[in-house]
Amino acid sequence: MSKQQEPGDEQVLCCSPLMREPLGAEQAGELARVFKAIGEPARLRLLSLIASHAGGEACVCDLTGAFELSGPTISHHLKVLREAGVIDGERRGTWVYYRVRTEMLAVLSGVLLPADDGVVPA
Amino acid sequence: MSKQQEPGDEQVLCCSPLMREPLGAEQAGELARVFKAIGEPARLRLLSLIASHAGGEACVCDLTGAFELSGPTISHHLKVLREAGVIDGERRGTWVYYRVRTEMLAVLSGVLLPADDGVVPA
Repeated sequence: MSKQQEPGDEQVLCCSPLMREPLGAEQAGELARVFKAIGEPARLRLLSLIASHAGGEACVCDLTGAFELSGPTISHHLKVLREAGVIDGERRGTWVYYRVRTEMLAVLSGVLLPADDGVVPA
Repeated sequence: MSKQQEPGDEQVLCCSPLMREPLGAEQAGELARVFKAIGEPARLRLLSLIASHAGGEACVCDLTGAFELSGPTISHHLKVLREAGVIDGERRGTWVYYRVRTEMLAVLSGVLLPADDGVVPA
């Protein structure tokens, strides 16, 4: 199956559902790193806020109001999400605007599907 | 949409993709707990080994050979997975047999899908 994605971490992770065959150590390590990054309530909420924000992107200025967390704490969580490959950030003027990397979420989603359905959504 | 599942944690988590609307604090906490449980390489490999094992179930005796981990360490990881609701265990004779709760994995998978596709597989 050809894929027209840009190169990225999700290429390494793609596309073997964990229910079809045993994960190798390397793939398990990479996947676990991403699941761990989203396995934190504030980060999961940030991810959701960014994804569902108008236009699919949000700056820290859009996010601070939704939490009782300091700006630096939010910035830390955003850095973890970014390093895990689930969001991208782009500086425009004063702010960095964040956007969810849907291709990475699609990989994670596909990995968790039953073996029969284990094709990563395009 | 009527669902004929047995009651379980996945009913609480179901069915709002995080990309459609901001997750509430409670749902984010529950989901993060499960993602954190699978966000560890050995646990992810165990989950995959169980899921892909013949008959869809495995005992500790089937799992110990695949890792350089002690029996107690494997048992600890299995306990974490079980408490997170991603596997079930059933004692039969000497061994506890573990099976993946596919309904929970389907919930996690559905949460990560793009908003347009965000219906949890039945």
